[in-house]
Amino acid sequence: MPDPIFERIAIVGVGLIGSSIARAAAEYGAAGSVALYDMSDDVRGRAAGIRLGDVAETLAECVSGADCVVLCVPVGAMAAVAGAAVPHMKAGAILTDVGSVKREPAGALAAADDGRIHVIPGHPIAGTEQSGPEAGFAGLFRNAWHILTPQPGKDADYEAAVQRLGAFWTGLGAKVETMDAARHDRVLAITSHLPHLIAFNIVATAFDMETVEQGEVVKYSAGGFRDFTRIAASDPVMWRDVFLNNKEAVLECLGRFSEDLAALQRAIRWGDGDTLMREFSRARTIRKAIIDAGQDSSAVNFGRNDGGEGKSKP
Amino acid sequence: MPDPIFERIAIVGVGLIGSSIARAAAEYGAAGSVALYDMSDDVRGRAAGIRLGDVAETLAECVSGADCVVLCVPVGAMAAVAGAAVPHMKAGAILTDVGSVKREPAGALAAADDGRIHVIPGHPIAGTEQSGPEAGFAGLFRNAWHILTPQPGKDADYEAAVQRLGAFWTGLGAKVETMDAARHDRVLAITSHLPHLIAFNIVATAFDMETVEQGEVVKYSAGGFRDFTRIAASDPVMWRDVFLNNKEAVLECLGRFSEDLAALQRAIRWGDGDTLMREFSRARTIRKAIIDAGQDSSAVNFGRNDGGEGKSKP
Repeated sequence: MPDPIFERIAIVGVGLIGSSIARAAAEYGAAGSVALYDMSDDVRGRAAGIRLGDVAETLAECVSGADCVVLCVPVGAMAAVAGAAVPHMKAGAILTDVGSVKREPAGALAAADDGRIHVIPGHPIAGTEQSGPEAGFAGLFRNAWHILTPQPGKDADYEAAVQRLGAFWTGLGAKVETMDAARHDRVLAITSHLPHLIAFNIVATAFDMETVEQGEVVKYSAGGFRDFTRIAASDPVMWRDVFLNNKEAVLECLGRFSEDLAALQRAIRWGDGDTLMREFSRARTIRKAIIDAGQDSSAVNFGRNDGGEGKSKP
Repeated sequence: MPDPIFERIAIVGVGLIGSSIARAAAEYGAAGSVALYDMSDDVRGRAAGIRLGDVAETLAECVSGADCVVLCVPVGAMAAVAGAAVPHMKAGAILTDVGSVKREPAGALAAADDGRIHVIPGHPIAGTEQSGPEAGFAGLFRNAWHILTPQPGKDADYEAAVQRLGAFWTGLGAKVETMDAARHDRVLAITSHLPHLIAFNIVATAFDMETVEQGEVVKYSAGGFRDFTRIAASDPVMWRDVFLNNKEAVLECLGRFSEDLAALQRAIRWGDGDTLMREFSRARTIRKAIIDAGQDSSAVNFGRNDGGEGKSKP
């Protein structure tokens, strides 16, 4: 096992991501020890029960000895938690997060900075629709991108801290990329935020169809709907905060999506098969690019009944 | 191996579904022999190369000796192919199909009926986004629903033929259900047709974003977008025909979807977190129902990096 990147890390918020970091850091030796804190008594108890690390009774106790504090709380809670954590952090320690939006929360983190610590926002492009401390697993970040959005115009100490945080995530198996926070939010709006909003929406639409029974929707969900329900099963609080904090980029994508959908709707209404054919054919190009880029390791395996997911047909 | 349900079946159109029926019928002994025909010389050659069955050089030759003819062609080609096939079919044979829409194509099949055969439309709720004769596999229909939409008001011979066709699909591992054609089209519009349209549309939207590079969309696709590209990689011709032939039900679902999406858009614009929270929370209920009903066998396995699919996070 290599020397740990950090002697001790502190994880605040023990859900899917927090518990996966705890497991990965221990299993791959990226941290000497792991402190954890969650505002929920229940979650703290469960985290201790499955031995995720040293479960602290207070936020201050959790962060006080850590070289790196990772905030794994919903984006909307980031400012308050950062403000409460920073005064108890060691001088020179790193404060990072895993929020799915970066521009507004990065501002909240920077505002909490008292000048003694290094604030380096981050976001792992990994997850499942599961929630809670039991949902985490050490391999979650392997071969996944981890995006850091460091603050511009900082000193050499800060740059060294960015390198060290990058090495930590590499140690968990991730591929690290740095990016401007605003660009991150534009890219994720289309690759993640809009897809989730659409998935939530189609499930709601199916719920409210009076002409089709819910039992039928469930029974025949393998035709494509099932894949959307999986995406839409993600944590509602987390997603509410994503949309409230990346409003501008999401509304821009959504406006375009609705325009494009109106064009398809018109083509269906008027029986314009050429337009449908042209739009549907384009989709294969981008799918091929994803498979060629190795971004979908399951390209060979999906669709088998014994695997379940991936079966999707009219 | 049980006695075959049919001495000989004929499969017209050797794509994913046709080739899967050929493989399953042989592997599970549901047919004594399999004849195949495809209008494409190339596909016929490939089907012969991978030994899917007796590849015929003409449609007439393919269907003439069969007890059951299965049309596996796009919905828009159904009328022409049925019209060409029926005169060459044996008296008392069954003509069925696997089209994703049932009301209009069932009319086309019934119109081709010369009174000597039994027309029984059908639709397997199974598939992958792959196309072509090489994409098929024997297990595709195992534990999948197969919907038959028999014509009402027929005689006892017809009912016996329906039973026999049901037994054939059961022999391929499917769970058979009968349903009114119009109801089928309403149910599939929400569980399959709308999800595919949305997936095609979001991929098109992502293509056209000038503010985000396509390389970035591909690179960070694990955040949810990737799952949509898989669904949208399905055969464009097949899907064009689905939308042109189930116009009414699809437009009804689409109208509701757009209304619901406008409400979410408004909630995002005005920072109405309560509405977002309420809508997002509902989605978990229906996901749970799908898992409880055993409609998603992968409930335990997704999200692992070694499996690939199912990773989906902001």
